[in-house]
This record gives sequence, structure tokens and C-alpha cells, in this order.
Amino acid sequence: MKDMNSAQNNVSDLLKLARKFNSFYLSGLHQGICKPFIVAGHQVGLVRPDVLKYLQRFPEVFRIAGKYVELNPAFRDYKERTTRVADVLQKLRKENEICALKGWRDECFEVSTAFYQESLLEMDRSAICLFGIRNYGVSVTGYLNHPSKGLCIWLQQRSFTKQTWPGKWDCFVSGGLAVGFGILETTIKEAAEEASVEGELVKKLVPAGCVSFYFESERGLFPNTEYVYDLELPLDFVPQNADGEVESFELLTAEECIQRALSPQFKTTSAPVLIDFLIRRGYINPENEPNYRYLVELLHVPLQSIYNWPFTHMVAAAAVNGDDQGIYDDN
Amino acid sequence: MKDMNSAQNNVSDLLKLARKFNSFYLSGLHQGICKPFIVAGHQVGLVRPDVLKYLQRFPEVFRIAGKYVELNPAFRDYKERTTRVADVLQKLRKENEICALKGWRDECFEVSTAFYQESLLEMDRSAICLFGIRNYGVSVTGYLNHPSKGLCIWLQQRSFTKQTWPGKWDCFVSGGLAVGFGILETTIKEAAEEASVEGELVKKLVPAGCVSFYFESERGLFPNTEYVYDLELPLDFVPQNADGEVESFELLTAEECIQRALSPQFKTTSAPVLIDFLIRRGYINPENEPNYRYLVELLHVPLQSIYNWPFTHMVAAAAVNGDDQGIYDDN
Repeated sequence: MKDMNSAQNNVSDLLKLARKFNSFYLSGLHQGICKPFIVAGHQVGLVRPDVLKYLQRFPEVFRIAGKYVELNPAFRDYKERTTRVADVLQKLRKENEICALKGWRDECFEVSTAFYQESLLEMDRSAICLFGIRNYGVSVTGYLNHPSKGLCIWLQQRSFTKQTWPGKWDCFVSGGLAVGFGILETTIKEAAEEASVEGELVKKLVPAGCVSFYFESERGLFPNTEYVYDLELPLDFVPQNADGEVESFELLTAEECIQRALSPQFKTTSAPVLIDFLIRRGYINPENEPNYRYLVELLHVPLQSIYNWPFTHMVAAAAVNGDDQGIYDDN
Repeated sequence: MKDMNSAQNNVSDLLKLARKFNSFYLSGLHQGICKPFIVAGHQVGLVRPDVLKYLQRFPEVFRIAGKYVELNPAFRDYKERTTRVADVLQKLRKENEICALKGWRDECFEVSTAFYQESLLEMDRSAICLFGIRNYGVSVTGYLNHPSKGLCIWLQQRSFTKQTWPGKWDCFVSGGLAVGFGILETTIKEAAEEASVEGELVKKLVPAGCVSFYFESERGLFPNTEYVYDLELPLDFVPQNADGEVESFELLTAEECIQRALSPQFKTTSAPVLIDFLIRRGYINPENEPNYRYLVELLHVPLQSIYNWPFTHMVAAAAVNGDDQGIYDDN
């Protein structure tokens, strides 16, 4: 049977980019290398070997049994799980060896089951990539239909002092969904802080779906879902940053945006939002993009079910059956 | 480990509908029951046992070897594969036993590899569901922003003489991608034939992505990808059918559309286009739909890679290794 990568002709630049921000998804989740992370009977993530070696030092918190890493099931509730995990992370943070923890945020993300969104614990935002926990955020595309240039989009350059992707080009406005904040609420908050979008303009925010992709970097695993919002801006609007996290803003044509997204100056994990917007607006379309349907697929990889079906379900079955030749084996 | 279906609370009506049009996807592709269909070394589909029993009678065309059904690899090219398969289908059609073939169309769909869209053969449209061949079509949502009713959408009722889904409510305009027709070309052709969209109005068609889902019915397997187009219509536009395939048209508010889509009067496999449109327009949004992100996921299931990774890739490896305990086994 031919390998899916055997014929490399006809691969567009956008598809190459979509493969890049899905580096972990397209690796087959490093089948056999990472261990499922289980909390209260639910798989909520994956742990890489480089992280596992740190967790092994805390057997009272993380049980590493065969093919799994399990948060001690004796922890009774959300609060106890949160505290016990935070203790370990603070110890590791002080040792200053794990790159991701150098960006400690003092802002927690929720760890929950995918389908019914049952909250299991919360964890500092910087740490969730160590466990491959699903990460939710919001992104706003600020755009306008320019009388002579056509579709134009405001991009932001991230501050050079940011812990992640400093100085890179990014969407107009974006932010993570921290514990206690709603989706629209976060969008409105971030739009005000990052770009001074306020008053009547806020009412023009239009939710338009979400993009999901699974990226991996040296720092960790990023199964990201971004709720996307569109915001048509007046021709004379100029975004002003209010929280010091933005270096500058620039208004680009759609074509310039694509070129920027394809360049190394763009935050890889923000490209899906931009590509999705340009697809929804018809700028990228079946007539000009040979890999259109596969591109759309790679903007919506099945993160909500990736830890339940089909892989882990079968692994669970194999484990229950005492089958040591489970499908996560590399041989 | 808890089953993903154990907690049935908080499941919205729209999620129930999304599960319905993904009945085959969510069954885990009937793991162990259907056999991969291989053409020229590529898996292009799946064959159910009820179809397999007919194919077994034609061993010179379909080789049923272990876990696979393979089109005879001695067939040299597109033309020979097409002719040999058509011969079998015509014989079966004459026997008048297979429900799907009663709707013979004299219109061929292409059978191709997913990623690089290499054409392998063509097959009558009515037969592709027997082999689980990926099916591509176009759909247009004709809408308007009504001064008093807000977002409104034109729906069509299918003719009672149609072979499939007679009399059911459907999108404004839709059609399958037949051999030799482009995507935009098909959209324009269908918009003219089904609803008399012509002239300047055609230029307002906006491509806006695609939806993918995997439905199963008694007739067969439907891994469908629909290229979606939006068309804003003038307030005074009234669609007129020109090809006799439409019973009537009706203009509904967004809320009425949702109710119609949830009713048994709606063509199940057209609901994804409508839901996707209402999500992209912000009518269905994270604040009013509790299963929003999972709903978006079920509008974009990974059909382009479903026959290659992860299942079949591993099955192929198991077959190569002579491993009889492959993952398709039910035990």
C-alpha cells in the first residue's frame, strides 16, 4: 500500500503550513512514545518521555503504570487534584530545568473531559503543554473591505517581552480561556486590552466557528482549539494597545497576510485562524487552492475525540485484557 | 475508563442531529465488520457484508483476500477499471436486488486517492455508496437579511419523484460533482437548473469552506464532503425551478430553519451545510450551543485521511506482517 506521503507533487504552501501546525497530529500522536494521561478515569492528555522522567520523581501524585500516567485516583476532588499538581509544578519550576515552566503565568486553565466538559482540575497555563491538555482560546480577525485594496486585515506584532513567540506576527486579538471566564467574555476583554476595541464596536463581534489543530514544539504538546470571531472595522479605526503585550499593529491586504503567515515571522499556531478566515470569505477557494478540502480538514482535526477514540479506546481495551502487545507498541 | 456516551446530560438537539449524520463515523467505521476496498494499492472505500456477498460472485473483478476487497490489480488503467466495474454493476442492476442500484443515474463520479486526487476509475453515482467511496458535492445557501425577520434562508423541497430523499426539505441548491465538471462550474450549473440563479446574481456566489461527515443508511455508506457556497439574494428574488427536480421553495427565518432541520421532513445529509452556515454567521454560537466545539468537529470529520490513518495504516502493517490478530478483529 502506498504511503500517503509518497507523492509529494501538488502540495501547496498553505498545505505545508497546515502540516506544520499539525506536526503532532500528523505524526500519529507519536504512537508508542507518549503515555496517555488519566485523571479520574478520563484520558485528558499525553505525556512525552522528556516530561515523564520528571513526573517519575513524584509517585504519590503521578502513578506511572504500564502504558499510562495516572493522577493519583485517591485525590478526592477538583481542589485536591489542583493543589497536589500545583505543588509538583512549583517544585519543578524552582529547579528551573523545564523550558515551559519558565513562562509561569499565574493564570490557570481548566482540565476537563471533552464531551461533557466536566471540570477535573485546574493547572497553570504554562504547564498544560507538558501534559498535552486540550487548550482553548479565542481569536478575533479585525478586517475591512478597503475601497481600493479589497479585503484587508489588521495583524499584531507580539511584544518582544512575551514569554512565548516574542516579536512574532499574530492575529488582531487573541487570548486563552482562563478559569472563570466565558468565551464571549474573554473575547471582549482581550479586544479591549490588546486593541482598545470598545463601545459600539464590541457589538459587531461575530462568532464564526472554531479551528482545531495539534502542534508540537520543544516546549511541549499543543492540542489547540480557537473560537474564532470576525470584526469588521471602520476604515479610520487604528488599534491601540492598552496592556503592553503588543509591539505594533499593521493593516495588510489578504495576499500580504498569506505571505506573512507563510514567513518565519508569523506565530505558527495563529496561522489556522487566518487561513480559516480567508477560506470563509472566499479568498482562498477551491479554484485557487489545489489542496482545499484537505486544508479545511487540517483546520478542524478531531481534538474533542482524539483522546477517546479510536486509539485510546483500544489501548484501554488492550490494557484491560492484559494484552502487552497493545497498539501503542512501536514494533 | 468511562465510556464517552456514559453521561448523556447536556446533549443539545443539534448535537443529536450531528451524531445522526455521522452515524457511521461514530460507530468507529463498524470496526471489524466492513472490509477496506483497495484500488491500485490505495484504500478508497469500505465494503459492508451485505454488499460483499454480491461481489464474491465476481472473483475475476473483485479479489476478496483476508481482510481486504481488492479490485483486480491486473486491470491496467482508468478505462479498464471503469469498464470492468461497470459490467459487474450492470449485471447486479438487472437482478434488481440491490436497493442503491435501483436509483441508477447514468452519471459517473470519480474514484480517486484522497491527498493527491489521482483518478483511479469512475463509477455510476448510485453505486458509490456500496463501496464507501468518498462523495463530493456542492451546496449553496441562499439567504437574505430581512428588514424585520433578520437572517432568512431559502430552502427547497425535493421533488417527490427523486430517487433519493423524495419530498424532503433540502438546501437552496446542491448537486454532486460528476466526472468532467469543476467545483465552481457545478455550483453555477446547479444554481441555474434548480433555482434559476443567473446573470449578475451568479457573481455573488461566495465559496466558504466545506463540511465533511460520514453517514450510513440501509442503502449504503456516505462519506460526504460538500463544498459550501453562500449567496445573498435580493429581498424580491423568488427562486424558480427549471429542471423538474424541485417541488417548491420556501423562505424561512434562521430559527425556523433549525426546527425544519431537526424534523424528519429534512434530508439528514443536508443538515451539515445548514448548521455550518448558521455557525459561520454567528446564529449558532458558543453562548447558545453547549456542544458548540464538538458540533463544529462533527461538521469536519477527517474523511480525506480516514482511509489512510490511523486504522488502515495499521491494518496494512498487520497484513504485511502476516499478523492475523489485526486491530480489525472484533475479539
